[in-house]
Amino acid sequence: MHTTAPATSLQHLRSAVSDRVRDSFAEVMDQHADVGPEITDLGAVATDLLDGGKRLRAAFAAAGWMAFGGPELDDRIVATGAGLELFQMAALVHDDVIDDSRTRRGRPAAHHQLAMRHDELKMMTDARRYGASSAVLLGDLLLVAAMRELDEALDALPDDERRSARRLVTDMMAGVTLGQYLDIYAQSAPWSDDPSVDLDRARRVLRAKAARYSVEQPLCLGATMAGAPPDGVESCSRIGLPIGEAFQLRDDLLGVFGDPALTGKPAGDDLREGSEQCFSPPHWSVLILPTPPSSAERLAIPTLIRSCSPEHARSSPAHKPRAPSRR
Amino acid sequence: MHTTAPATSLQHLRSAVSDRVRDSFAEVMDQHADVGPEITDLGAVATDLLDGGKRLRAAFAAAGWMAFGGPELDDRIVATGAGLELFQMAALVHDDVIDDSRTRRGRPAAHHQLAMRHDELKMMTDARRYGASSAVLLGDLLLVAAMRELDEALDALPDDERRSARRLVTDMMAGVTLGQYLDIYAQSAPWSDDPSVDLDRARRVLRAKAARYSVEQPLCLGATMAGAPPDGVESCSRIGLPIGEAFQLRDDLLGVFGDPALTGKPAGDDLREGSEQCFSPPHWSVLILPTPPSSAERLAIPTLIRSCSPEHARSSPAHKPRAPSRR
Repeated sequence: MHTTAPATSLQHLRSAVSDRVRDSFAEVMDQHADVGPEITDLGAVATDLLDGGKRLRAAFAAAGWMAFGGPELDDRIVATGAGLELFQMAALVHDDVIDDSRTRRGRPAAHHQLAMRHDELKMMTDARRYGASSAVLLGDLLLVAAMRELDEALDALPDDERRSARRLVTDMMAGVTLGQYLDIYAQSAPWSDDPSVDLDRARRVLRAKAARYSVEQPLCLGATMAGAPPDGVESCSRIGLPIGEAFQLRDDLLGVFGDPALTGKPAGDDLREGSEQCFSPPHWSVLILPTPPSSAERLAIPTLIRSCSPEHARSSPAHKPRAPSRR
Repeated sequence: MHTTAPATSLQHLRSAVSDRVRDSFAEVMDQHADVGPEITDLGAVATDLLDGGKRLRAAFAAAGWMAFGGPELDDRIVATGAGLELFQMAALVHDDVIDDSRTRRGRPAAHHQLAMRHDELKMMTDARRYGASSAVLLGDLLLVAAMRELDEALDALPDDERRSARRLVTDMMAGVTLGQYLDIYAQSAPWSDDPSVDLDRARRVLRAKAARYSVEQPLCLGATMAGAPPDGVESCSRIGLPIGEAFQLRDDLLGVFGDPALTGKPAGDDLREGSEQCFSPPHWSVLILPTPPSSAERLAIPTLIRSCSPEHARSSPAHKPRAPSRR
């Protein structure tokens, strides 16, 4: 095995992936310019949001690739990273519509940007609804753009690697989507009489929606593309899953207590007063309680968390949990 | 060139494609069963809706394939048809959320089915919002399932055919999505002082959202897969586009005046009283007026149409156009 790339290589990778993300999405928009000048608004919102992001998934894909002898900054792994980042943006745009999130990557969320554009153009119909509808379509467009970029990236691989990698990509995308569905189900489902039922569901949300997709699957994808043997891919999976869980837990903490100037989203956005989308007590209990919490404890945890968050010190507690968000 | 398949062959194709659609989606759900039993609800809604449909796009893909020597009922063209039908369902689920349509293929639309399930499970949170959010995710899942099935279908083709076909698929998906965006833009945009501006936009909606995607692109995809030369694919395009436009105009007429028992959707759903989603006068004027309509004519056309529709004879006219819907 090769060693992983040092910090400067990572910076070069991020820069190459960011360039490719921008160029790839611009190609899609240029190719469909005959639909009309009206699509420029949609493209501008995506281009703005795509400019942010840590390129985390691209970096893990490159780590898996290089661990099995893939050459650094190879076009195929840069394009794969760009495809993963386009997919990430697709998922975030839909997540933000679903959660009605205000900001993303330090900017107004896509559906808010589109609703603002509706107002600027003095359009008829309802601005909020227009924003949400066009953001659903923007997410779809980004998902197709991701597939298109991954087509380019994987097509030049040998047959076996290409087939395995493509299957990994669609498995990952389906898994994240089902994990996000489980998340909104968990937010809506009534409490079970048995606390371990809620705890189990929160753990499944964490794993399906975030942990596998943030680290394990990009790592395995890069390794597969480089022709890693089955036990090599299996090792990537065993290494990646716990790192992904740790990443997601840390990301959730930053979402509540982090510095908005660094995270790009308001601290405690998950704890909005009056919202039913309060941070998930069962999920937090994985961190802070030795056993599944009792019903009373579950109700107390949001209050406890809110009292620790300076922005929400004077807010009253919400009573419905919310599982962790993906960034 | 070979002759196109007779009616019995078409029936066999429809049946084979329907089986493949059902099996392919079931494979995706089985593969992700570890996400948890909660995803069963989402799968059941999709399976129900996927059971309907005319398999129109699958039939045009098979026509293009057989026209250039592809063997009848070949696995690759059946899987391609199934992929197109899964994509069609993905687009319809999102369309129905955007338009808040009540029914689809004779059943409640996906977001209504999911909201009903919310009530059955006595869930917390808002049922309508839960229905819309989970239908956004169901559309995403169907889009990924479509890509997965098309991967299978195209992967065994020779390199050149595979690359051209894959590019055609992502071009088609991006084009439909941008056409749908142009549609909601057209519904929201204020009238132009120049009637030809609105007419031009309505024509672009018709072409981008529906006409190319219903006939031309499936036909070209089948031809490309069979190794048709560039001028053969170009012929498919020239034949397919006007047929697609005619199909869409006919489909719109059925949407207003058709028999709900045959169309699977209420007659005049596009003309709902009090809704801003009234059928597009500029679009209709392509059919019934020799020149672009004046402002007064544009306002009069919805009234005229409504007065012809028995279900809406007593409704007052709505004043905002709606471009044609895709079925």
